Amino acid sequence: MKAALLYEGKAKKVYQASGNEAQLVLSYKNDATAFNGKKKDVFPGKGRLNNEIAATIFSYLAEQEIESHFIKKLNETEQLVHKTEIVPLEVVVRNIAAGSIVKRLGLREKEVFSPPLVELYYKNDDLNDPLINDEHAKFLTDLTSVELHEIKVKAFEINTSLRLLFQSINLTLVDFKLEFGRLANGRIILSDEISPDTCRLWDKDTEAKLDKDVFRQGTGDLIQVYEQVLERLTNYVSV
Amino acid sequence: MKAALLYEGKAKKVYQASGNEAQLVLSYKNDATAFNGKKKDVFPGKGRLNNEIAATIFSYLAEQEIESHFIKKLNETEQLVHKTEIVPLEVVVRNIAAGSIVKRLGLREKEVFSPPLVELYYKNDDLNDPLINDEHAKFLTDLTSVELHEIKVKAFEINTSLRLLFQSINLTLVDFKLEFGRLANGRIILSDEISPDTCRLWDKDTEAKLDKDVFRQGTGDLIQVYEQVLERLTNYVSV
Repeated sequence: MKAALLYEGKAKKVYQASGNEAQLVLSYKNDATAFNGKKKDVFPGKGRLNNEIAATIFSYLAEQEIESHFIKKLNETEQLVHKTEIVPLEVVVRNIAAGSIVKRLGLREKEVFSPPLVELYYKNDDLNDPLINDEHAKFLTDLTSVELHEIKVKAFEINTSLRLLFQSINLTLVDFKLEFGRLANGRIILSDEISPDTCRLWDKDTEAKLDKDVFRQGTGDLIQVYEQVLERLTNYVSV
Repeated sequence: MKAALLYEGKAKKVYQASGNEAQLVLSYKNDATAFNGKKKDVFPGKGRLNNEIAATIFSYLAEQEIESHFIKKLNETEQLVHKTEIVPLEVVVRNIAAGSIVKRLGLREKEVFSPPLVELYYKNDDLNDPLINDEHAKFLTDLTSVELHEIKVKAFEINTSLRLLFQSINLTLVDFKLEFGRLANGRIILSDEISPDTCRLWDKDTEAKLDKDVFRQGTGDLIQVYEQVLERLTNYVSV
């Protein structure tokens, strides 16, 4: 199914799909990184969990008529996706104040954003993915104003869908990061992954963190919490 | 003319005007600070120069039908202004890449922004005046979406007017910072100051810096370059 390795990221390898120029194989790795790669570790089983979780979430979004690059799961750690040219933005949606924004803007942790906030970061490791505004984004990417607006609208729609999904499994969606990519025909769709690597998820009752913060902060067993997210998702989806 | 001292900032003191609750006296100090107050010095004559320069520029803008808080110059270092409640934003307009943005976004110095960029910073010394986006601004201030939009439109208009002014005196307006304030009746107008403390100004022929960068970078005599700006402005305005 796989041909040449095109790119190796922090959490995934990207291969050309054999026999179809317009498709890629994403291979989820067991590596976890935080603080722009300054903290690193390997967790056997993480690749399988994130592949399953992302596949479940992308399938759920497809049912809600939110298109993504996801085509299908190929095996435990790999999924087939439409090839896109990545838009060099990290689109962050925040429902509740947590993580970097608390210190940056002097907020109270757990402060609720109503309406939710959307933030753009310039995807550039050398620059530490700096926060940017819309005008920077138009200057730094090939996005038109209309496309940038569409990406934000899409991010809010995805937030609405995902909040409902996670609410059903007793999780609060605190914030999450999306990436978008451009298909060969020019259209922009949701790409990359959605997983506990890219979302903050808190148990609704206990406020226990079921996401990569347990690794960032060294406060829990990453595999155990990711397994719990997958288990809850699987039980919900198969109802 | 002055009653109680209301506030002392890095570069100005703000007094209640005696006999008129709706007016303030701004007293320009001789202090120069940079890097959020980490670098400091005193330059006898600076207060007089910035008071004169700001008065000249606000008067020029008034002729272009751009309203500000400026009423009149009172004496060498003081000016009378309308009292406003400051909006806690620094509104930066950039025509050419210089200063912090170069490193932050990995740009080439002197790269031209066309159209110009506008940036918002949250005016908060404890947080080092962080860059924010429109949604942060609406969350952190009492501005409505319409008011925020109007502030940006106003910033672009001011940029257009000031570029023409400085071009006439053989200076390139590289970038500048504005602040806005809310009058008692709710209306938002341009406030604070416009001076070589708040603008980057380069000689059109030599690219010599005629602004606070000579102090930030220790590359020239602040009083000498501010005097040159005032002299060119005075010659132009009196033509």
